[in-house]
Amino acid sequence: MPGARAVVFDAYGTLFDVHSVVEAGRAVTDDPLALSLLWRQKQLEYTWLRSLMGRYEDFWTVTESALRFALRRRGIDATGNQVEALMEAYLSLATFSEVGDALARLAPRPLGILSNGSPRMLEAAVRSSGLAGKVRHVLSVDAVRTYKPSPAVYALGPAAFGMPAEEILFVSSNAWDVAGAEAFGYLTCWCNRSGAPMEELGVVADHEVQTLDELPDLLGRT
Amino acid sequence: MPGARAVVFDAYGTLFDVHSVVEAGRAVTDDPLALSLLWRQKQLEYTWLRSLMGRYEDFWTVTESALRFALRRRGIDATGNQVEALMEAYLSLATFSEVGDALARLAPRPLGILSNGSPRMLEAAVRSSGLAGKVRHVLSVDAVRTYKPSPAVYALGPAAFGMPAEEILFVSSNAWDVAGAEAFGYLTCWCNRSGAPMEELGVVADHEVQTLDELPDLLGRT
Repeated sequence: MPGARAVVFDAYGTLFDVHSVVEAGRAVTDDPLALSLLWRQKQLEYTWLRSLMGRYEDFWTVTESALRFALRRRGIDATGNQVEALMEAYLSLATFSEVGDALARLAPRPLGILSNGSPRMLEAAVRSSGLAGKVRHVLSVDAVRTYKPSPAVYALGPAAFGMPAEEILFVSSNAWDVAGAEAFGYLTCWCNRSGAPMEELGVVADHEVQTLDELPDLLGRT
Repeated sequence: MPGARAVVFDAYGTLFDVHSVVEAGRAVTDDPLALSLLWRQKQLEYTWLRSLMGRYEDFWTVTESALRFALRRRGIDATGNQVEALMEAYLSLATFSEVGDALARLAPRPLGILSNGSPRMLEAAVRSSGLAGKVRHVLSVDAVRTYKPSPAVYALGPAAFGMPAEEILFVSSNAWDVAGAEAFGYLTCWCNRSGAPMEELGVVADHEVQTLDELPDLLGRT
């Protein structure tokens, strides 16, 4: 892929494993995976719904709202401290095992993150995971107060890197996010960790990998 | 509720039971309920995502895309004829049992439908269910080429009825749809058929009922 001069990653689900909050969930339920899946589903739904309603709230607020819904829907009585502990888990998410090595091998290309996360959430996750020195730009939707897959969000990448979207590879494990980036004009790669079928949104990813350590070979040598 | 001079209903899930397509699903899977639930989930997701991407396609197209995804995700091999038969079920959905009587008792107030459905889908469903003479306005998002909960959609109601949103009761079984209507300015009633918790979107419905036959008493005599 000789055209890709920079690589931008989605954060949650792509670099950071959001279901690593499952551990924190054990304190409130004996089915923490079900809680984690519903929490994540509602988190995304609320970003889409609030964007369409024109009622943006930042990702910390949306994530806490989604957690409160998921707890009630699952019939879980959680204390204020337990809710706080679950939310704190978002500030120190685990990265997927191949992330550090893959990013090191992708350098010296400029790398970045483009995420729904609020600046504070992203800063905490990047710092606690040791990615701080490895990414040049950490871009939050908060700058445009709407969420993916709005084109206004994807426009942040070319603006920060100073190059057109057609020369930036956008990588996400979320198929709908890849569709949004592809529609905007990026080169795209879907990191399809679970072997899911592609979303039917009228666009397909340029490339598909199962884990991020396939990326350096995909891009070739600089 | 003396302020409500007209009543507007959401269609799918509120008047029409979308899971009545479960019957049609038996031809392709031994778990048609799981297929129906995933189909419905993806159908909604695709309306939100396409609206945010600025890539509107009408509800028939979105519904078929969602079906194709759901079939592949569930590992179901369906023939072209079987896909067509599943889609056709959307043109003759069953109404919930109390609908005809509830609407009759709400007259002579002007009644309407405000739906994601395409004009052709709504016309077919209204005709096949015998609601044709009972609703004055059948309003499709297709007129504004975006989906709920965009304010542009909710604006269709006041325009058609010639009265402000604050004097129209909007009724939906979809909590996020109620939130969108409430944020726009309607009087709202959530028809909470399954006893679910309200979505955490920063707005609450003015009223909540379990089935539509509670509405006439709620509105009082005109």
